[in-house]
Amino acid sequence: MDTSTGAAFLEAIRTSLPNLRLLTDLLDLEGYRRDETAYLEPPPPLAVALPTETAEVAELVRLAAQHRVPVVPRGAGSGLSGGAIAVAGGLTISFMRMNRILEIDRSNLVVITQPGVLNAALKQAVAAEGLFYAPDPASTEICSIGGNLGTNAGGLCCLKYGVTRDAVVGLEIVTASGEVVRLGGRTTKDAAGYGLIPLIIGSQGTLALITEATLRLRPTPPPSVTLLAFFPSLTSAGDAVAAVVAAGVEPSTLELMDRTTIRAVDDDHHLGLDRDAAAMLMIESDLPGAGATRALEIADAACLGAGAASTIVATDPAEADLLRQARREAFHSMERLGVARMEDVGVPRGRVPAMLAEIERIAAEQGLTIATFGHVGDGNLHPNIILDRDDPDGHAKLLRATDALCRAAIGLGGTVTAEHGIGASRREYLELQRGSAAVALMRAVKTAFDPLGILNPGKVLPDA
Amino acid sequence: MDTSTGAAFLEAIRTSLPNLRLLTDLLDLEGYRRDETAYLEPPPPLAVALPTETAEVAELVRLAAQHRVPVVPRGAGSGLSGGAIAVAGGLTISFMRMNRILEIDRSNLVVITQPGVLNAALKQAVAAEGLFYAPDPASTEICSIGGNLGTNAGGLCCLKYGVTRDAVVGLEIVTASGEVVRLGGRTTKDAAGYGLIPLIIGSQGTLALITEATLRLRPTPPPSVTLLAFFPSLTSAGDAVAAVVAAGVEPSTLELMDRTTIRAVDDDHHLGLDRDAAAMLMIESDLPGAGATRALEIADAACLGAGAASTIVATDPAEADLLRQARREAFHSMERLGVARMEDVGVPRGRVPAMLAEIERIAAEQGLTIATFGHVGDGNLHPNIILDRDDPDGHAKLLRATDALCRAAIGLGGTVTAEHGIGASRREYLELQRGSAAVALMRAVKTAFDPLGILNPGKVLPDA
Repeated sequence: MDTSTGAAFLEAIRTSLPNLRLLTDLLDLEGYRRDETAYLEPPPPLAVALPTETAEVAELVRLAAQHRVPVVPRGAGSGLSGGAIAVAGGLTISFMRMNRILEIDRSNLVVITQPGVLNAALKQAVAAEGLFYAPDPASTEICSIGGNLGTNAGGLCCLKYGVTRDAVVGLEIVTASGEVVRLGGRTTKDAAGYGLIPLIIGSQGTLALITEATLRLRPTPPPSVTLLAFFPSLTSAGDAVAAVVAAGVEPSTLELMDRTTIRAVDDDHHLGLDRDAAAMLMIESDLPGAGATRALEIADAACLGAGAASTIVATDPAEADLLRQARREAFHSMERLGVARMEDVGVPRGRVPAMLAEIERIAAEQGLTIATFGHVGDGNLHPNIILDRDDPDGHAKLLRATDALCRAAIGLGGTVTAEHGIGASRREYLELQRGSAAVALMRAVKTAFDPLGILNPGKVLPDA
Repeated sequence: MDTSTGAAFLEAIRTSLPNLRLLTDLLDLEGYRRDETAYLEPPPPLAVALPTETAEVAELVRLAAQHRVPVVPRGAGSGLSGGAIAVAGGLTISFMRMNRILEIDRSNLVVITQPGVLNAALKQAVAAEGLFYAPDPASTEICSIGGNLGTNAGGLCCLKYGVTRDAVVGLEIVTASGEVVRLGGRTTKDAAGYGLIPLIIGSQGTLALITEATLRLRPTPPPSVTLLAFFPSLTSAGDAVAAVVAAGVEPSTLELMDRTTIRAVDDDHHLGLDRDAAAMLMIESDLPGAGATRALEIADAACLGAGAASTIVATDPAEADLLRQARREAFHSMERLGVARMEDVGVPRGRVPAMLAEIERIAAEQGLTIATFGHVGDGNLHPNIILDRDDPDGHAKLLRATDALCRAAIGLGGTVTAEHGIGASRREYLELQRGSAAVALMRAVKTAFDPLGILNPGKVLPDA
């Protein structure tokens, strides 16, 4: 796109939407260039629009289509795949001023929200009504619902309660031509026509922009009971996960931290964790009555049987909250160690021990620190590659390590991303994982939704 | 399509697949004309193929594309939307000989199956391994997994455990060009690229044919505790549902039967139900330990508070099984009363009392018997329109009643089909419910997957 196209486009926006907040100053644009993905350094966008209502978004996209300008939707910028990074000459639409919860509908157990609401704010608002919104990425305090919808975010309790896709019953979207379309409503079950909602969830703004969502709620579950188990090796922790599953326990949370993570988290939060353990599992149950205690007794026996050196049940809810909070902030504890790039591999549950072994092998072969934590009950591991801030070869080392991790996950029948998305940072692995025929179907779907290719180009699908 | 095209196509099949079972005799074809949807009378298909493996399906579709012959996938023929009814001049592909369970993978909690396996057979096979496949349409004994995938089938326990779409982690499909494509695998969480699996589930064979599925399993839940509550009016039963939800109970089953259903079921099964009640709720919990009993105590109080005349807890598991079985066979009990057409409306939970009132109004206005049962905890009601077998105006009366029911559901923010699919019988309501813009997106998706329009034409999407 040449400069005159950009200027004409901005002029058209100013004429059509005089009250829209539109940033074009380079200093302002800087904050909208990147997301939280280390080593991604895109150019600044042409401009940033901060609409407050759907009609403005529709008009922006209509003008973008007319001027053939790329559009990048952006939530809170906490993404870990580069899904919201700027595109040269493109308009970034920040949804952070569309941040109103429109309705909490108790009788239908749904909440209707704009996309700019933070996950934690939504949870808190419905909790005040005795209700529970399940999806809880570790970044809950800083991530937006719109970003969660874009990446099909998971989190700590999706093991029991499902991922973001499972929580969505209705959407309002703006299509690539600038049309506002409603999908679904407040009905839980609907078999009328194609599942466009689950198709759009996880498409990272490449098929449509989400301007409103109707999300499923549940009654607030009982308080969790929390078990911590410390292991002398990663292998024994992996075996314990398999043993817990085999024992028929369905925890609400089943998280793993390796030694580097345990120490970094303990340094930050002074929790008195066993700093010599090679791995820790955090297992929770929120079954009512004595159910949770009974489930954790079975899990405890499974952990000890698999070789746990020690186990502790956190009976004090405040203590358990602190542990959960520390786990959620694990990535930030990593960032104190250096530049941390969080990967997001997933493998079939039974392959977790093999994936953990692969991570250790890759770290040793490449002489890198890789600290691993993650939602091990789902088979979803986050290996964090830690690099010296001043290492001039940092990026090259990172690329070698992520390449090895992605290939290992695919080799185990897994995925290169379980909950962060392909975004801009993993496009070269999509075809390797899913195969060229599946990617060809995705391209056909993309063309069906966005024939001009203006919606978040350079994300999700590899260049043709 | 003219006759010579059909003959050339059949000749090509016989040449390419000499060992394939291919039916062309009119008497044989008769059994593949209809499904269980009353008053749908399609012509016989050109031929029926009964492949035993994916490669045969792929070759059939490749030839069909070459000869521009429509292809209709068919499971057990128990559908209630006409999704599998024959298309004039088309090839029906029956999947009933692709009926092998390929693997029960305990460590990854998945089962890999061909589509022709019956739902009940799959449940039974995994139960023998201590595992549980959740989706359970009332027709479990006679419906195939392939049909369940096609319609995104629900059932009695999807209130707690989700619908078919929620259970699918991997698919093998044959595309409209005859290509075999694998989607997903054994990994629970995957955010790599677009959600093609949830898009294909529920598309009733109009986007691709499913030749294999990888389905999520769980540990077998504890035995259910069952509460029956009898009400003097439909309204009070509807109020009880709202009260149960408001009390924070999450039952595993929450079913309603109206008086006509209670009597028909009791006539068939001699269960000693309260035949004078206007409505009955069957509420179950499968929480472990004392959790289930406690949940049903709360539900019991909610029912009594809403005006239940009597409640009974079935403590004997055999008695509860009998009740559940009777509920599952309710449609067959209906069929003794006349020609029964089962509708499948869904409304937001809080609108259930209003929908029940609409059903009563429509029955009265049109002078028809409409017997209603359904998965009321999901807002999914099955009004059964009962017509005299000999009534020459039966079809016309049916069309008026279904039209009124569909419009009432849409008017309440609901759906014309919660779990049976649009199929051939509800196409004229798709646009009314979802809007022309959403249907236009569906058409674009259809064209992306099936540019020649050979996959199950005349189903799901209305004629353009």
